[in-house]
Amino acid sequence: MTYCIGMLVDTGLVFLSDSRTNAGVDHVATFRKLTVFGKPRERAIITMTAGNLALSQGLVSRLQERARDPEIESLMTVANMNDAARCVGRTLRELHALDSDALKDHGIEFNVSVIVGGQIGTEPPRLFNVYAAGNFIEATADTPYFQIGESKYGKPIIDRVITRSSSIAEATKCALISMDSTIRSNLSVGPPFDLACIRRDTCEVQFHRSIAGDDEYFGMIRKRWGEALRHAFHELPNPHWPD
Amino acid sequence: MTYCIGMLVDTGLVFLSDSRTNAGVDHVATFRKLTVFGKPRERAIITMTAGNLALSQGLVSRLQERARDPEIESLMTVANMNDAARCVGRTLRELHALDSDALKDHGIEFNVSVIVGGQIGTEPPRLFNVYAAGNFIEATADTPYFQIGESKYGKPIIDRVITRSSSIAEATKCALISMDSTIRSNLSVGPPFDLACIRRDTCEVQFHRSIAGDDEYFGMIRKRWGEALRHAFHELPNPHWPD
Repeated sequence: MTYCIGMLVDTGLVFLSDSRTNAGVDHVATFRKLTVFGKPRERAIITMTAGNLALSQGLVSRLQERARDPEIESLMTVANMNDAARCVGRTLRELHALDSDALKDHGIEFNVSVIVGGQIGTEPPRLFNVYAAGNFIEATADTPYFQIGESKYGKPIIDRVITRSSSIAEATKCALISMDSTIRSNLSVGPPFDLACIRRDTCEVQFHRSIAGDDEYFGMIRKRWGEALRHAFHELPNPHWPD
Repeated sequence: MTYCIGMLVDTGLVFLSDSRTNAGVDHVATFRKLTVFGKPRERAIITMTAGNLALSQGLVSRLQERARDPEIESLMTVANMNDAARCVGRTLRELHALDSDALKDHGIEFNVSVIVGGQIGTEPPRLFNVYAAGNFIEATADTPYFQIGESKYGKPIIDRVITRSSSIAEATKCALISMDSTIRSNLSVGPPFDLACIRRDTCEVQFHRSIAGDDEYFGMIRKRWGEALRHAFHELPNPHWPD
């Protein structure tokens, strides 16, 4: 399983993904799901993938291969982020044309989902969720984040604390708390985590770090967030009904 | 959609269910999912159902019909809670024999899941989760609760605060917080909620109440829990990395 979150706040973008994939509990492995495309001060684009690992890797390979050829349309040449999302969607449709019949013969769903975000030139940073069919939606002021993969356990905390005016540091903290809630409830999501941030108008990935399970800050978040929840729970008055 | 939680603590059992069902967003209705079977001071059994509404209602109708005839085996005559779970499972298998072929013809899954808990005589209170196939599992000291339906949003808070030594009042409070997290994230789960408690060794449903969306205690929980989470979030140090 996978869990990835992308958040769009006024000052930039935050991306967090786990790195665990599994095909049954006896085949658990670590793969990176977060990929960076960029040219400093011109564009910074990040993709994160969830779903069938062969399809996810096939998508990223194609996107990377094209990005090396400056003569063809790719994430390195598109003029804006909407075209970047369209480019990812078109690449998914190529994969579908190649693979879906064979997958169907084996009863395997064409299951892949992508978060794409970044900034190109002077356009504001934007964030998209591209579906397996190649269509996509864009984050708005009302819904400034997307999740893919095992998203439900970690959703309530994001809904309660994140708005467009949250800082990048707050969005990072919230993403890590959301990841903690997820890995506690689903063993197939796990460290290391890939964390990356793009600060608005820099057109650079300012920060890209792998966070191990024993990372000091993440460990502090895990411990203190659990304590804070238990404290908040015990502070709330009990109902008087059952007694 | 549906969300139901059953919790088994040292002093008894707590049950909470929503009442919303839907077949598409334009067909949302209110149905009770929590049913009581009992004879004061002899037995108190509660069932909660999730899944296909026709199957859920078919199951409860059959269980209730049999419970009226003291000559046949039913939830009113079984000798212990394991037999109660088995009785529910057998009734599900009867429904499967009747309906599954017709459902399959229409591409509809035989989808129903049941929580059954209670106390019979001097046996300790017990809690079961019965699957569509009629097989079942029992709550243990390690996992003292079951959820059915839309369970993921409301799971992290239960995992963090509930143990077998929690009080009935604490379990009730936690169930309501878990329900709040669920209804915030999934519009197809909604009030009124059915809440019921069985205190150990009374063999009676001590408390059975419908909680409306504007209930005073639930409103206080919603407001103060949200505030407490935001406060706890802002109290946690931000990471220093992105800056």
